[in-house]
Amino acid sequence: MTELLTPDQLEEALRAIGDKRYHNLHPFHAMLHGGKCNKGQVQAWALNRYYYQCGIPRKDCALMANMEDKAMRLEWRQRYFDHDGLGDDEGGIERWLRLTSALGLDRDYVISTEGILPATRHAVDAYIHFVRDKPLLEGIASSLTELFAPSIHRERISGMLEHYDFVDDSMVGYFRERLTQAPRDVDFALKYVKQHARTVPQQQAVLNALIFKTNVLWAQLDALYLAYVEPGMIAPGAFRPES
Amino acid sequence: MTELLTPDQLEEALRAIGDKRYHNLHPFHAMLHGGKCNKGQVQAWALNRYYYQCGIPRKDCALMANMEDKAMRLEWRQRYFDHDGLGDDEGGIERWLRLTSALGLDRDYVISTEGILPATRHAVDAYIHFVRDKPLLEGIASSLTELFAPSIHRERISGMLEHYDFVDDSMVGYFRERLTQAPRDVDFALKYVKQHARTVPQQQAVLNALIFKTNVLWAQLDALYLAYVEPGMIAPGAFRPES
Repeated sequence: MTELLTPDQLEEALRAIGDKRYHNLHPFHAMLHGGKCNKGQVQAWALNRYYYQCGIPRKDCALMANMEDKAMRLEWRQRYFDHDGLGDDEGGIERWLRLTSALGLDRDYVISTEGILPATRHAVDAYIHFVRDKPLLEGIASSLTELFAPSIHRERISGMLEHYDFVDDSMVGYFRERLTQAPRDVDFALKYVKQHARTVPQQQAVLNALIFKTNVLWAQLDALYLAYVEPGMIAPGAFRPES
Repeated sequence: MTELLTPDQLEEALRAIGDKRYHNLHPFHAMLHGGKCNKGQVQAWALNRYYYQCGIPRKDCALMANMEDKAMRLEWRQRYFDHDGLGDDEGGIERWLRLTSALGLDRDYVISTEGILPATRHAVDAYIHFVRDKPLLEGIASSLTELFAPSIHRERISGMLEHYDFVDDSMVGYFRERLTQAPRDVDFALKYVKQHARTVPQQQAVLNALIFKTNVLWAQLDALYLAYVEPGMIAPGAFRPES
């Protein structure tokens, strides 16, 4: 990339990253929403993803710490509330625990995160560190996987309800909420990025930030695949489904 | 320090730091609350301290980003709300702007922070970086200047109202709020520190964190003194009171 893109070309380039790299393209996602996972695999997915869910409000706080502008913090903090909750809203972490409990996982075990795969922890921690340490523009750009999220959430809801007799409507509340939350969030972030990435290096950094984030998501499904699909190499200490 | 302190001895050692190092001992504070500042000096103080006020919610977000425990984030975030506001509460930053405006400073000029002294910026940024980069225990310990804050707020309220005809009751709302906010906050932080600093190195780190923070506050008054009291060396670009 050597020429400056217009804001709309930048958006196009960002969306093109999703077309090639978003984790809806991962074989584990296809298995999950296609009804090809066994219950242990669905449990492993939900257990590991809990750590990601917990990481999101932390990365949003890290990002807010980098915002000198109070108005911007007030705009962004709704994302934080979406996960940690506020007032009547229990928040996404609690909704995720509803899913893991309904899947038969012990709540305390899930919260302890002791059963997650090492690569899950590394990926999520890398995301928090990225947002904390990089310029605000790149931190915001890394959130733009939300551009691609609604379609995957819809696939998850319909796919999981259709294919698994152990999944019912009450368990997919997290994804239902995200269907409305994510598009609201992404409007602000996308506008910010299009407006503030005004040089070739900035635009390159923004595109790389989104690639980084797609890799954070991809690596989590890779780790699940290796451990729980094939070759089935579960790291020491990690969750072992009952067979 | 070579021997492990009991939790109560640790509290005593923390309080002893305040007795020697809290900025209520600084000559500029004595001038300010003793009615010895001219209006330009009070303006310079309020203008510079605005940057500190803006830094506080950012450092609280940085600290929350380091909290893996959601319950702890929910406990801590009240501090964040105290400054950025929530619902009916406009928050401390807005209350501070009420003070600077009443002192005759242009609101946009204050918000721009372009008139603050370099050392103010360095001190506040150092605080945010400390909290972001150090272990959570030390980040929390650095907040413990709140142990000493209520007395200084009371001095400020009474001293400023008594001595300055350009200060009225509506301008000291920030400090009035802090009289109830700070003690509530410090209970949790002090208990946490007493409970979690269980080794000599941890206790030393906790004491050093509080010393660090007292220095952050002290350095801001040093900078004001040098620039606006004597010898009156105002850095290029910094606020110059009308004479």
